[in-house]
Amino acid sequence: MSDQTVPTVQPDERSVGFVERQYTTLFEPPDRLRMESGREFGPITVAYETYGELTPERDNAIFICHALTGDAHAAGWHTPHDRKPGWWDDFVGPGKGLDTNRYFVICANVLGGCQGTTGPSSINPETGEPYCLTFPFITVGDLVSVHSALVRRLGVERLLAVIGGSLGGMQVLEWAARFPDQIHAAIVLASAARLSAQGIAFNAVGRWAIQDDPNFCEGRYYGKEPGPRRGLALARMIAHITYLSEDSIEKKFGRRLQHSDTFAYVLKREAEFQIESYLQYQGKRFVERFDANSYLYLTKAMDYFDLAEAYGSIEAALRRTDARFLIVSYTSDWLFPTAQSKELVAALVKEGQDVTFIEFDSPYGHDSFLIKEQIGQLESVVVPFLDQTYLARRRKD
Amino acid sequence: MSDQTVPTVQPDERSVGFVERQYTTLFEPPDRLRMESGREFGPITVAYETYGELTPERDNAIFICHALTGDAHAAGWHTPHDRKPGWWDDFVGPGKGLDTNRYFVICANVLGGCQGTTGPSSINPETGEPYCLTFPFITVGDLVSVHSALVRRLGVERLLAVIGGSLGGMQVLEWAARFPDQIHAAIVLASAARLSAQGIAFNAVGRWAIQDDPNFCEGRYYGKEPGPRRGLALARMIAHITYLSEDSIEKKFGRRLQHSDTFAYVLKREAEFQIESYLQYQGKRFVERFDANSYLYLTKAMDYFDLAEAYGSIEAALRRTDARFLIVSYTSDWLFPTAQSKELVAALVKEGQDVTFIEFDSPYGHDSFLIKEQIGQLESVVVPFLDQTYLARRRKD
Repeated sequence: MSDQTVPTVQPDERSVGFVERQYTTLFEPPDRLRMESGREFGPITVAYETYGELTPERDNAIFICHALTGDAHAAGWHTPHDRKPGWWDDFVGPGKGLDTNRYFVICANVLGGCQGTTGPSSINPETGEPYCLTFPFITVGDLVSVHSALVRRLGVERLLAVIGGSLGGMQVLEWAARFPDQIHAAIVLASAARLSAQGIAFNAVGRWAIQDDPNFCEGRYYGKEPGPRRGLALARMIAHITYLSEDSIEKKFGRRLQHSDTFAYVLKREAEFQIESYLQYQGKRFVERFDANSYLYLTKAMDYFDLAEAYGSIEAALRRTDARFLIVSYTSDWLFPTAQSKELVAALVKEGQDVTFIEFDSPYGHDSFLIKEQIGQLESVVVPFLDQTYLARRRKD
Repeated sequence: MSDQTVPTVQPDERSVGFVERQYTTLFEPPDRLRMESGREFGPITVAYETYGELTPERDNAIFICHALTGDAHAAGWHTPHDRKPGWWDDFVGPGKGLDTNRYFVICANVLGGCQGTTGPSSINPETGEPYCLTFPFITVGDLVSVHSALVRRLGVERLLAVIGGSLGGMQVLEWAARFPDQIHAAIVLASAARLSAQGIAFNAVGRWAIQDDPNFCEGRYYGKEPGPRRGLALARMIAHITYLSEDSIEKKFGRRLQHSDTFAYVLKREAEFQIESYLQYQGKRFVERFDANSYLYLTKAMDYFDLAEAYGSIEAALRRTDARFLIVSYTSDWLFPTAQSKELVAALVKEGQDVTFIEFDSPYGHDSFLIKEQIGQLESVVVPFLDQTYLARRRKD
């Protein structure tokens, strides 16, 4: 193939351009991560990316907590041949919601993940084999402890803000509770102080789909094809339905057929409706990039998340920080409905804390914070919120 | 075990008492069911039950269309040792919503089912083997054609009413469209003129869970243990979540743990939260009573259901009948939301038809029409609606 036929990316002036995934290893002996389960664990390699420049005062760092299946690659491109930029490229870059001309933005893959940070697919240095299900049980608190240590390693004493949606939002809340003095602001999108029983139910069924796959082999499937691809795809498809709103599925696919104008009147495994084809595509793409064991660990961490349970009450969890809060929910999000955001707001208001709340009108369901069409809306509140936080802190210091 | 220790049922005066499943065979050669797919099929054995007495005028018959996983056993007990009565026993009996002192109530298992009516697990008389996936593709129209023929076989020219919820409601609507002169009234509960794209999505993922089970054996699992039990249980658990409201799951289970007050911090297949245990129980019970192939056929029939697609418009589908309509929806039903009932009502109003609509306040989600706590509410409109229908018809005839 000649160079002319290879499509290459030319990042525009609103892109962070080409970026590299970086690594650092934390909790090396004798230092160990004291986990919420009581277990100690290390070493932990963390994969992260940064965009923008840290000021000499080190006061302009923003940390992005990614959601369940995200990774450290939030913005820009790794190579000119990438099919897609980072997962939040619409929101992170010069002049964008998280303006890399002003801020130093950090995003890291979570503990237990499968995109460079130590997780069940990593090699256990003590055995030379992948951890598989011997990987320690992790909680949202543990994810945050690792990222908190990464921030210190990067020489940042206090973050201007931590931001994240869904499981990312849970990490933001946990950060405020666990490291109250490490953040000036907390931005929580489409999230909650705990996972609902319905959320636990969907996660559980997804995990059982993986564990029922005969190729799961009790988690010891690395290097053995095909692995629990079918179970993982099922789990993803179930979850994907919950990330969309009924209206958005209806508008995008409705009852349209995939290959024909008329019903086949045949019972096959193949997709007949467009929505079926779309789900199969989502499932297929997902198993190419995600590890089933990571899915088990991280969904379980979500299930366990409950600020009130861990700290006595939501108020008790959040009262120790003087961070400003921005809480965002979306009208059509039925997985993390607005009522759950309001519960957070009520607790913060009760404690007399600085909290801004906005419910955005969006047809896109839980995934709204990731959707290009909704990013302008999010920018319109995040940009001034960060501005005010930054200027206030500068005046104070 | 002595007789004293065996718990036995003593039906009270509000029960239809002990009942027997009856059978009749329709579409025997040379008669054949002309299916919506164009295929011809027969013979078809239908399992049904009746409660109450048919009047000499044969004008008091009500037909119950059951939902996806229901059967002919709507009320009463088969033996004194039954664990539970029929699935709608709270609603069918002397003095109940469908008052068997006044009405002759019929309920039959659907074509393609697994509780006595010919379905994929039945023996194909031409081969002496179970049909498995050679069973013909079925539609809601086909289910109704069989029941319509059963009603004629029972000597009833015109039903006082057809009633059903969910897939049962789809059958009621199809009945009004397909056999407009066979019914005086149509009662549609928690249903719609078509399955939504979200509904198709959940059904599809359930079917893939079954088809991905290595014990599915392309549908030829009869007589081979264990069969696709795991896949069928997964399908049921996914569907079961959609039958409940978020609030009802939250109230009933919340985040309570099953066996402990504290987290185990262990990744296991076993249920840790009560909602997980409940789902596993639902899955387990379901596979004991339901056939995976029937689940494939019947969910696909639901997916195909679309009055407007089949008849040009909802109005065109329903304008040929002079039946009175009662449309019922439930506030917390997110699988068949009220908006879909209103679409039906709008079409009926446009055609100048006799339609009553009520949206009941209920916390129980899609399953509300089956829930004991909500039955009084349903009775309060169904009883006078049937009364008026019956008296009006008697005056007219």
